[in-house]
Amino acid sequence: MSTNTAVLLQSRPNPHMVADNFRIGTVPEPATPVPAGTVLAELITVSVDPYMRGRMNDTKGYFVGPFQIDEPLSGGAVLRVIESGDESIKAGDLVQAFAAYQLRQILPVQGLKVLPPTAATGFPEHYYIGVLGLTGLSAYLPLLEIGKPVAGETLFVSGAAGAVGSVVGQIAKILGLKVYGSAGTDEKVRWLLEELKFDGAYNYKTTTADAFLASTVPEGVDIYFDNVGGDTLDQTLGHMKLNGRIVGCGSISQYDTPEKDRYGVKNLFNIVTKRLTFKGFIVSDLIPKYPDAPAQLAKWVKEGSLKSRETIYNGLDKVPEAFLGLFVGANTGKAVVLV
Amino acid sequence: MSTNTAVLLQSRPNPHMVADNFRIGTVPEPATPVPAGTVLAELITVSVDPYMRGRMNDTKGYFVGPFQIDEPLSGGAVLRVIESGDESIKAGDLVQAFAAYQLRQILPVQGLKVLPPTAATGFPEHYYIGVLGLTGLSAYLPLLEIGKPVAGETLFVSGAAGAVGSVVGQIAKILGLKVYGSAGTDEKVRWLLEELKFDGAYNYKTTTADAFLASTVPEGVDIYFDNVGGDTLDQTLGHMKLNGRIVGCGSISQYDTPEKDRYGVKNLFNIVTKRLTFKGFIVSDLIPKYPDAPAQLAKWVKEGSLKSRETIYNGLDKVPEAFLGLFVGANTGKAVVLV
Repeated sequence: MSTNTAVLLQSRPNPHMVADNFRIGTVPEPATPVPAGTVLAELITVSVDPYMRGRMNDTKGYFVGPFQIDEPLSGGAVLRVIESGDESIKAGDLVQAFAAYQLRQILPVQGLKVLPPTAATGFPEHYYIGVLGLTGLSAYLPLLEIGKPVAGETLFVSGAAGAVGSVVGQIAKILGLKVYGSAGTDEKVRWLLEELKFDGAYNYKTTTADAFLASTVPEGVDIYFDNVGGDTLDQTLGHMKLNGRIVGCGSISQYDTPEKDRYGVKNLFNIVTKRLTFKGFIVSDLIPKYPDAPAQLAKWVKEGSLKSRETIYNGLDKVPEAFLGLFVGANTGKAVVLV
Repeated sequence: MSTNTAVLLQSRPNPHMVADNFRIGTVPEPATPVPAGTVLAELITVSVDPYMRGRMNDTKGYFVGPFQIDEPLSGGAVLRVIESGDESIKAGDLVQAFAAYQLRQILPVQGLKVLPPTAATGFPEHYYIGVLGLTGLSAYLPLLEIGKPVAGETLFVSGAAGAVGSVVGQIAKILGLKVYGSAGTDEKVRWLLEELKFDGAYNYKTTTADAFLASTVPEGVDIYFDNVGGDTLDQTLGHMKLNGRIVGCGSISQYDTPEKDRYGVKNLFNIVTKRLTFKGFIVSDLIPKYPDAPAQLAKWVKEGSLKSRETIYNGLDKVPEAFLGLFVGANTGKAVVLV
């Protein structure tokens, strides 16, 4: 058996994160037999997500605490059960969990969601950390809950070629909205226009939100799904329609920026004058309210109306590269690490 | 009969407003007899409100257009009917209206709200441009609709000694919240603490929101009622509790600030990490949803649990002074111009 490889936090960003903040190491093998109410499971695939940047700082988080030095990272994962200490789950089952980024571990049964076998669905395991997992739900649920989309309305999504943004845009198209987006390369822009059938898209490295929205979306924006914050948010505020909704999903342009260098948003008075709603969310708060959402996402994927695109990294040791890539626009669609 | 005095816009701010942007002049007497469906009415009292600053610019507004050069200002007013062209209203009636700031004018009946005689209520006419008018509703309705106050929660209101802020704080106390506020003089702070029974208050000219909230409200803020924007908003974002609500009522620190000098808010990422709601409103959207609110406000005022304080200006020619005073903190409570 291989050693129990893990992705460890080696040091904290000071102030910017670098590859050297991570280290690939080993951790002890879990003791067996497994205690009652738990399983021994092996990682199949793990997610890298922008919010993990916050956990690299030694500050109290709002839904999960900081990573610890010399301890494994943790996050969304799909695992295969090796040995079960509970009759509700058996060896060989595929499970979705919030797990440590180490090959093998003991997990409490209550935190697991058993997934259908891939043979039955045709969906690869990594869909469950992406379009059919928290990524898909982080797109779909706040779009419904905060965006309150109505067919014929106009949606603008930043980070549109990213994991969440690409799902937001596609679902908004399915729901009958006009959809516009920003991305960081001309190739991504082409993908949004040609494959995902966006009504318009631009490269934020060569065009501003202001210029794009003024020329291409003169009627204004009903829903802005914000993945990036900073100047894109600031400029978009000036293009929102009366009673517009801003979904505060992420602020990736600001996460690795020390406080003194953070972008200052000057157009917030639009929230007052245009009666906007700007609201954040955590997907776990919304999941109980939309019990049919996972089945709906699976149906759209099955039909082909919702496409999943991934940038695949092979090997747990690629977690740092995949993660750092999120902040420089290295990935298109969902960044997936196959273990 | 006196000439038909009016407060006219003489010029637009460039970039800051000054007293010279206004001029006291005369306009023609309205022609009589009055047309059917209208009344001839005379101003008794008029309101000055921060949003009027936006109307001084020649830009499209979001609920009412710009003031025109050499034309009278307009806004919230109470008037006495002199002659009526409609059987639903008679001469001598007291009416609330959105009116031109000129002594006498013709108004369509459909825009009027007939008020009870002062002898019947004991309320002076100017209460209807203040605590019992749009000011009171602009405090109460968004506090309910956006703030969603729960007894025991903590509310922080900026501009707390102002017209809206002082009503917000008192209603929040009535509803069982802990209430904190900012104001611009030590005297106003004493008034908040001693007369309005705030749980805490500070002078923003000598203390920061950051310092005050860290020391006095360490548990954090559930509801921030924002009348000022700028650095107070920025710093308060860092002290909001999880799932907190920010009522975007005004941004008075920014209204007279040219775009390049506007304050840049750096702490917006808290909207994402703490799942905050930041929402603007226009009171006319909310009025139909809360039909009992005017009666509730009147009841609280009658009981003495909601106190009205005014800074009174005598004469229509004092409108510019009263209005400019809003932006330098010259008024405590509601600035009222008695005609």
